[in-house]
Amino acid sequence: MDERIHEHAAVLVDWSARIEAGDDVVVSVGEGAHDLAVAVAEALGERGANVVTTYSSEEVQRAYLRAHDGDFELPEHELALYEAADSVLFLGGTRNTAATADVPTATRQDYNRAASEVREARMDTDWVSTVHPTRAMAQQAGMSYEEYADFVYDAVLRDWEELADEMANMKEILDDGSEVRIVKEDTDLTMSIEGRTAVNSAASVAYDSHNLPSGEVFTAPVEDAVEGEVFFDVPMTLEGQRVENVHLTFEGGEVVDFSAGAGEEALAGILDTDEGARRLGELGIGMNRGIDRFTDSILFDEKMGDTIHLAVGRAYGSCLPEGEDGNQSAVHVDMITDMSEDSFIEVDGEVVQRNGTFRWEDGFDG
Amino acid sequence: MDERIHEHAAVLVDWSARIEAGDDVVVSVGEGAHDLAVAVAEALGERGANVVTTYSSEEVQRAYLRAHDGDFELPEHELALYEAADSVLFLGGTRNTAATADVPTATRQDYNRAASEVREARMDTDWVSTVHPTRAMAQQAGMSYEEYADFVYDAVLRDWEELADEMANMKEILDDGSEVRIVKEDTDLTMSIEGRTAVNSAASVAYDSHNLPSGEVFTAPVEDAVEGEVFFDVPMTLEGQRVENVHLTFEGGEVVDFSAGAGEEALAGILDTDEGARRLGELGIGMNRGIDRFTDSILFDEKMGDTIHLAVGRAYGSCLPEGEDGNQSAVHVDMITDMSEDSFIEVDGEVVQRNGTFRWEDGFDG
Repeated sequence: MDERIHEHAAVLVDWSARIEAGDDVVVSVGEGAHDLAVAVAEALGERGANVVTTYSSEEVQRAYLRAHDGDFELPEHELALYEAADSVLFLGGTRNTAATADVPTATRQDYNRAASEVREARMDTDWVSTVHPTRAMAQQAGMSYEEYADFVYDAVLRDWEELADEMANMKEILDDGSEVRIVKEDTDLTMSIEGRTAVNSAASVAYDSHNLPSGEVFTAPVEDAVEGEVFFDVPMTLEGQRVENVHLTFEGGEVVDFSAGAGEEALAGILDTDEGARRLGELGIGMNRGIDRFTDSILFDEKMGDTIHLAVGRAYGSCLPEGEDGNQSAVHVDMITDMSEDSFIEVDGEVVQRNGTFRWEDGFDG
Repeated sequence: MDERIHEHAAVLVDWSARIEAGDDVVVSVGEGAHDLAVAVAEALGERGANVVTTYSSEEVQRAYLRAHDGDFELPEHELALYEAADSVLFLGGTRNTAATADVPTATRQDYNRAASEVREARMDTDWVSTVHPTRAMAQQAGMSYEEYADFVYDAVLRDWEELADEMANMKEILDDGSEVRIVKEDTDLTMSIEGRTAVNSAASVAYDSHNLPSGEVFTAPVEDAVEGEVFFDVPMTLEGQRVENVHLTFEGGEVVDFSAGAGEEALAGILDTDEGARRLGELGIGMNRGIDRFTDSILFDEKMGDTIHLAVGRAYGSCLPEGEDGNQSAVHVDMITDMSEDSFIEVDGEVVQRNGTFRWEDGFDG
């Protein structure tokens, strides 16, 4: 077995999930994640944790959902499992990124609604999502399998403590700041972040961060205080459709005009979901320079160094003041733009990043 | 997908486990059982059951057990899952029948002891064990994969209702009888079954039967009333060792002499486990003629038509009168002998099977 799989397991168990002896851990194993599951089981055995492994097969889920009449019930046994769990480790690893393409959206929504207590119970644990490289994911990224595996481990096997320290600079700037401005080609967007708290998402539950890899600092813009236009030059897949070159115009926090070079219909469908789907729920600043290219996977793309992403839809509670709900929506869709060239980020009128260099870095030209 | 996989799933869900709408079902998926899991998920979706899939990987379990210091705890979250479940469907399907060969027996025992409440909770559900054919199992059976798949489906896709009716004859004979005698080469064994109840094991929880395939009628001999000798001509694998040509001599219910043509050490280890390991816990009569050869898998071998098997060790509670514990032991090891030629079974002095033909069948020569 590739030694990096064992290193990945150790980062996941120790840095990310902070597993200790006696913890009741659920390990959710994707169809293509077997090898990582073996390495994680070994690490959990060494730490003295108690383990249940579940099988997260898209093909099994597809067969179940398509055969069901849609009148789903809360699965009480699944709820009992997660209510009694301390941690959940999601080991993704799809064998076909389109495996559930023919499950009707309505069926998926009906199921998710019936099982919402299960999802909440899972989110109440120290959960962490990661992925084991598969050929299907390499294909989605347009890469050979070996090259893709190198890419994944470059992103995952960071010095997380060091990155967390660096990201603390950005968190401090955002926590102290009131207004963020983003400027690049076809982009000049201003938003209020007054009273909001930034999350230093350092791939560890100790940092309120649940993705491995992570490496972003994110906050929630004030939902009615976003003005201007923004262009997203990174392509993405939304509801199975390729969406490219999205351009959004905001007034009073709301998207009042939009266009896309491809996939405009999918974009329109998302913006029309509900009222909150036309307002921002997240501003994220990607700071993981181990991720050096886009691979059409949001887990990686949004953390790429020298990018920012904005999400329409639901805001994360950890960014909001006590008692405030923030932007509410059934969706949370991230869109990414490259900030490595001809661009800058300003906070309260001061440039904090220009052309991909932060102000605390060598070569910064404020 | 082979249409027989869907038929297998339907037999499992409807005939064996009797799943109904709203049932909370756990599906335990072996490493090589993915395709059966997909078919079972589809069937469970159609029936309107609620499903959790667990991943029963021998390699994951091996890694966990070997890494652990042996001081295992009861996994409370796993217990919660099974206590809330109505049914558990075990879909075996190993990719390597020796995958856990290097897990120390003591580690396995420590783990089983710590998790015994989980096992009990599972056994309190309507559980059923079956297998999906894999190349590893074909290899163990000395067969090509296609031939082995045919073998599995011949065993599983029976007219179970008809077989249950036929097996009812044998159950009636054993329930009414007091003494069973088995005679063949090197074999003349007499045992009391006075007061014991036979199980018509027709591969359905409705018959108190938890294996698919099944097709045997079994009871529990009175533990101190077995006399004579018995020769087992069917080879088996015990604790990873090949064991062949076992010969046992009983006095007062106890094995007082034993030998084996191969694997005598493994046999001795089992007989020395505890006091009950030298006494019989089960007499079983194989009646599934869809199983036409030995494949070194006890799930199939012991149900083969025109065989009988005897198990040293633990008796099943369903065979015992109210309030009696029957033979107690940490082990239950089945040994099989062919009854298709030069042999007969007598109950209370009357021949009920001779040379593989039951007395209710054409060609019976009492």
